Amino acid sequence: MVNEQGYNVALVGATGAVGHKMLETLERKKFPIKQLTLLSSSRSAGKKINFKGEEYTVQEATPESFEGIQIALFSAGGSVSKSLAHEAVARGAVVIDNTSAFRMDENVPLVVPEVNEEDIAKHNGIIANPNCSTIQMVAALKPIQAKFGMSRVIVSTYQAVSGAGNLAIDELKDQSQAFLNGEDMEANLLPVSGDKKHYPIAFNALPQIDVFQENGYTYEEMKMINETKKIMHAPGLPVAATCVRLPFFTSHAESVYVEVADENVTVKDIQSALVNADGIILEDDPSTQTYPTPLSASGKSEVFVGRVRKDLDNAKGFHLWVVSDNLLKGAAWNSVQIAESLIKNNWL
Amino acid sequence: MVNEQGYNVALVGATGAVGHKMLETLERKKFPIKQLTLLSSSRSAGKKINFKGEEYTVQEATPESFEGIQIALFSAGGSVSKSLAHEAVARGAVVIDNTSAFRMDENVPLVVPEVNEEDIAKHNGIIANPNCSTIQMVAALKPIQAKFGMSRVIVSTYQAVSGAGNLAIDELKDQSQAFLNGEDMEANLLPVSGDKKHYPIAFNALPQIDVFQENGYTYEEMKMINETKKIMHAPGLPVAATCVRLPFFTSHAESVYVEVADENVTVKDIQSALVNADGIILEDDPSTQTYPTPLSASGKSEVFVGRVRKDLDNAKGFHLWVVSDNLLKGAAWNSVQIAESLIKNNWL
Repeated sequence: MVNEQGYNVALVGATGAVGHKMLETLERKKFPIKQLTLLSSSRSAGKKINFKGEEYTVQEATPESFEGIQIALFSAGGSVSKSLAHEAVARGAVVIDNTSAFRMDENVPLVVPEVNEEDIAKHNGIIANPNCSTIQMVAALKPIQAKFGMSRVIVSTYQAVSGAGNLAIDELKDQSQAFLNGEDMEANLLPVSGDKKHYPIAFNALPQIDVFQENGYTYEEMKMINETKKIMHAPGLPVAATCVRLPFFTSHAESVYVEVADENVTVKDIQSALVNADGIILEDDPSTQTYPTPLSASGKSEVFVGRVRKDLDNAKGFHLWVVSDNLLKGAAWNSVQIAESLIKNNWL
Repeated sequence: MVNEQGYNVALVGATGAVGHKMLETLERKKFPIKQLTLLSSSRSAGKKINFKGEEYTVQEATPESFEGIQIALFSAGGSVSKSLAHEAVARGAVVIDNTSAFRMDENVPLVVPEVNEEDIAKHNGIIANPNCSTIQMVAALKPIQAKFGMSRVIVSTYQAVSGAGNLAIDELKDQSQAFLNGEDMEANLLPVSGDKKHYPIAFNALPQIDVFQENGYTYEEMKMINETKKIMHAPGLPVAATCVRLPFFTSHAESVYVEVADENVTVKDIQSALVNADGIILEDDPSTQTYPTPLSASGKSEVFVGRVRKDLDNAKGFHLWVVSDNLLKGAAWNSVQIAESLIKNNWL
């Protein structure tokens, strides 16, 4: 039952790129907050943040921070979630975790509300928010799978630097200006802050997001592959991914190839499944050069789909171009949607 | 037989982005030139261009410009090639055409020397240079096809603005600086200069290169599909393409999925086929974050391949990341290679 007075909400990682968008989203969506607690690592503790006209001081997150908290949004990196999420649950909070810490844990639902909202009901205190590049893809795939079946997915991504945090945004700005000034570009962060080598991202493309796994795929690619199967309840669905970081600030784009079960499906069928789907906006008209781009999708909550084409050789194959704001639907908005669902369905 | 005194060479489109690289390449590769004639549209005629320390005045291209010319390199747009290539041939020149005017003409060989050099012998005066994004892909696919067969290709491209000419380079620079200054970006050219709408390319991604065709694919995508089949002598090979323009200046990158004929092929097999192939450099070592990028490939003649992975679901499937300088191997260098082959093989 909805609590008219609102809920005690904690946000861990309040000072990060996603944390900032979480606060904006909570305010814009009028999320019913009784008391807001802003938490972070010790490094960022003490910072002041404004929310609905009131100033909050960010506190260092400790187990005790979660006393009395009903909903805890975590977005401060996997290690923080691993050390504190169970502490929050032990104190009665439901955790919505935006890191990869628990996503593949079979006791933790991994949820995109438009795709598998019912999984939230099975939570044991923690609900995981998927990887940004996964969320927008499954949001677009689900209405197609539901109507026409799905036997294969191959995706190549075009990902914004904000997925790597505020420092990556600064690095792209600094390198771009240096290049335009004819100066050398300094690369200290991307593709992966903790990895051995760094390459310029400005006016470049880096085919590495997150660290390499033993099988030659990056962790980002394996997240897309494994999370897609889990969210879509399709453990046997073949999914392949190549993930590439590009020099733009916000919104990921994806070139997605899918095979459906029936060779009589048309482009119009796919388009009408997408038009009628929750959270999807079809922007697809070649005659007017209408298609989504990272710039056009930024700041919006929906997942945008364009360039729907039937494969010229395989009657079951279709190509899509899927774009969404990686900080909103890819992170903050999806987390807040899960929180709204917890309340609306009395699953808290 | 090689003419020791060199050849009379005309370059049509001498003032463009590719024309500039043609001149650089002719000089760097010590192409045997007896007399050089620089031609252009009337708009650019009169410009001065330096070649090997000598100043040349660019002349307006007319049918008579080709009197006495043995090799004519065309790179001034399809309409110029259509109106003048046959005039050049009638006057005894062999035309190497870098536009799409004759590529799919069955009387015109479409050539990437590492792939189908022998087709040059069949020319009737015109040899077509393929589209830049096609050249680098087929260069990487051919050694794989030759050794292991090939039953399918799906590519998503990451293409540099220089493929759209010098004005597109300026547009990316101007828009980038405007954005960094907090000003509005002016879009007057991309994605396609003659199309109805223009969108900013700086800090963005545009899923349109060249104009849309009736089937919903862009002309660039259809060029990749049709040219690949022709060059590889594989009319029945399924090829799918999604082409995307991105905010970097030089070198196209491609995320390529291929299926080979044999499920026992390993990543090492693919890598060793590529290592031993002409014109290919394998840059592929996840343990040292080694892979090609647009910045690393720019200014080089070769096609670079990295991120070779076996598909996790299909034992015949492999993923590759293919990068090459679109103005060199994608245009100028491939054209000059064809000219070198004409001479070396006495096919002039």
